[in-house]
Amino acid sequence: MHRLVTPIAATEFEAVPELAADEPTPRLGTLVMKFGGSSVADTGRLKAVARRLVAARQAGNRVVAVLSAMGDTTDDLVALAHEVSARPNPRELDMLQSVGERISCALAAMAITDLGHEAISLTGSQAGIVTDTVHGKAKIVDVRARRIHEALDDDRIVLVAGFQGVSTSYDITTLGRGGSDTTAVALAAALGADSCEIYTDVEGVFTAHPRVVPGARKLHAVSYDEMLELAASGAKVLELRSVELARNHRVRLHVRSTFSEADGTWITEEDERMLEKAMISGVTHTLEETVYRVEGIPAARLFSALAAASVNVDTIVQTGPQEIVFSAPVGDGDDTRAALERLGARWTAREDLGKVSIVGVGMKSHPGVAAKAFATLDELGIAPQVVTTSPIKISCHLGRAEVEPAVRALHEAFGLERETAERLDVS
Amino acid sequence: MHRLVTPIAATEFEAVPELAADEPTPRLGTLVMKFGGSSVADTGRLKAVARRLVAARQAGNRVVAVLSAMGDTTDDLVALAHEVSARPNPRELDMLQSVGERISCALAAMAITDLGHEAISLTGSQAGIVTDTVHGKAKIVDVRARRIHEALDDDRIVLVAGFQGVSTSYDITTLGRGGSDTTAVALAAALGADSCEIYTDVEGVFTAHPRVVPGARKLHAVSYDEMLELAASGAKVLELRSVELARNHRVRLHVRSTFSEADGTWITEEDERMLEKAMISGVTHTLEETVYRVEGIPAARLFSALAAASVNVDTIVQTGPQEIVFSAPVGDGDDTRAALERLGARWTAREDLGKVSIVGVGMKSHPGVAAKAFATLDELGIAPQVVTTSPIKISCHLGRAEVEPAVRALHEAFGLERETAERLDVS
Repeated sequence: MHRLVTPIAATEFEAVPELAADEPTPRLGTLVMKFGGSSVADTGRLKAVARRLVAARQAGNRVVAVLSAMGDTTDDLVALAHEVSARPNPRELDMLQSVGERISCALAAMAITDLGHEAISLTGSQAGIVTDTVHGKAKIVDVRARRIHEALDDDRIVLVAGFQGVSTSYDITTLGRGGSDTTAVALAAALGADSCEIYTDVEGVFTAHPRVVPGARKLHAVSYDEMLELAASGAKVLELRSVELARNHRVRLHVRSTFSEADGTWITEEDERMLEKAMISGVTHTLEETVYRVEGIPAARLFSALAAASVNVDTIVQTGPQEIVFSAPVGDGDDTRAALERLGARWTAREDLGKVSIVGVGMKSHPGVAAKAFATLDELGIAPQVVTTSPIKISCHLGRAEVEPAVRALHEAFGLERETAERLDVS
Repeated sequence: MHRLVTPIAATEFEAVPELAADEPTPRLGTLVMKFGGSSVADTGRLKAVARRLVAARQAGNRVVAVLSAMGDTTDDLVALAHEVSARPNPRELDMLQSVGERISCALAAMAITDLGHEAISLTGSQAGIVTDTVHGKAKIVDVRARRIHEALDDDRIVLVAGFQGVSTSYDITTLGRGGSDTTAVALAAALGADSCEIYTDVEGVFTAHPRVVPGARKLHAVSYDEMLELAASGAKVLELRSVELARNHRVRLHVRSTFSEADGTWITEEDERMLEKAMISGVTHTLEETVYRVEGIPAARLFSALAAASVNVDTIVQTGPQEIVFSAPVGDGDDTRAALERLGARWTAREDLGKVSIVGVGMKSHPGVAAKAFATLDELGIAPQVVTTSPIKISCHLGRAEVEPAVRALHEAFGLERETAERLDVS
């Protein structure tokens, strides 16, 4: 889906002298580190990020950092836009929104300079992030990393403004939700980075939401496919697009906390050892979906109309020629209803449902998972309204009030609290 | 001093049908309109600016607007920089500071779109403002206005982020104090605009500061040379650089109020009619200069050292081989003192002085002006400490407490309140 330049061969490694086999090999790889809005919420936190980047440089890495806008900067800018216009022009909204990340990067570069290291901030355009021309949801079509390579060769820490690029018509674009993660993964792929660290305000990926399941446990590693299912099913730590991009380019992701030195969760290729260890990685849930039931419209027409309206359809179920059930984000409700009206469809919508999913690569070799899940729900007196599955996921739509009890019961039924279920750390 | 591309011939005018000689000629020229920070201080004012731009478009102009950052945005950004770094890196400070004007332009473009007109915002770089690589005080070396021409040809109102450009090494630069005025004049020159309107929070250029002289009168027109002397002598409505640039490229400036439709002050080439009308255009004053007295250092060495330290020397007086007197802004005090120490000069500084200047092209043909000015001061018992003159200006440094009484007395002595002294309106 994303076309990227072939990762550039790290020819600078050739100059490293060979060491005797028993000495530890020094690390001189490229590390991409991404910090989200809460990690750079104020100048104090920005300075802490600067220290962390300097430490990574001192440990021998070539460091490229991708920063988000500080705290609520982007929301504040969008609010300003809505003060001047009911429907802000998308090109201009991108021009406006792109400034937040530039502010973070310029400030971080200053802070690093004050720590006695060389740094340079680059806009998405200067970093060579080339996108298509779809404002607000642009896709990266190329990464031209010449300036980044030059700055790394000059021994600089490079700060790249996340979430943005320059279009093939030379306009500033933004990448949409989770765009800074996408920037980081795209750069890691283009630079052939050893790994891409995603710093966030949680410690990693958990077996369930800790607010719902107090015994939820941090996962040490999940596969790309599991992470895709977890992200699609409500785990908010990473956006789908960046995980897809990481999988396509085999970028090792490490989701970890800005506020601690502890390892977080590694997202990497599936490992044979993983399969032995755990049947289920986690239980996720979301309350932010509406379930639509549509009659009399062929699937091809229905979903091309929804795609044209930019509705992010999630689950799709069809059990006969006449009826199609699908779910879509609550936030896309207006667009969805307008598209259905334009089609002249007969339709109903349920906004009183939530979704619970269990995800795990182990499911592929353990056929009893679905049976156990349904039995667990049945014991609580819960009858799922819609069920969908993938090779590594089972999702059930059920009443909104039933969601949290279901998460807790499934988490316990699959033994996710137990330390013995813990994964091997693949870092 | 600024190299600009030759103004592009307005070939689009060729299609305009000829009219009978007695019909009024329709205007289809290019108009550059610049709005300062107070003119776009909030979204309400931004919307008012949008309406004003649309009105100018509807009147038949091809409209290019240059906007400053909203209110205190730039100061707020600089304060953030000083939170993370004691001496912010100049390149990064430019990256940081340049965002304010982009925000204004994007918001104004949205507001214009909402009014049913086409608009596009351009960064300094997108507008083709090419500068040297001196961060924080960059000079424009070229204007490559291709995108502006294309947008005007597409019938769009073009919004250009003021105060910034892109350096010949592809970094974002800022133009320093008054930079948005400079952007506007440079664009007006490159586009061959009919005039450049500078919108501000005052009504124009006055014969004296209205706070000091309640009877001060708005001037309808002054020459470039007069405006240069007025700006250098304390009239803050325009920065020197932009007036110099306007003079060099014969750009007609119109300084006027954002908050009224009334004509302001035109700044144009000297006109024979002007010479007949008034001997003196105005009396200006400043309290923000320090007067230095230096012994034992040749002028060439002294002023090259001060230039290297980026000190903006104003008045220079030398009456013998041993002693040089010069004045410089209070804000450059640290740099000035450091430069003098490095030279090993014997020097003293007076910070208790102010400067009063009378400016007027009429002075050239009226030799009694200096005599009258000194007589007026003498009547007040004021003895000037330093006196300097140019063909169209007389400046006196005197005690700070004497400044305001001197301004009032000179304003009255030269009859500046009288309506009969009023200038012809050259608009």
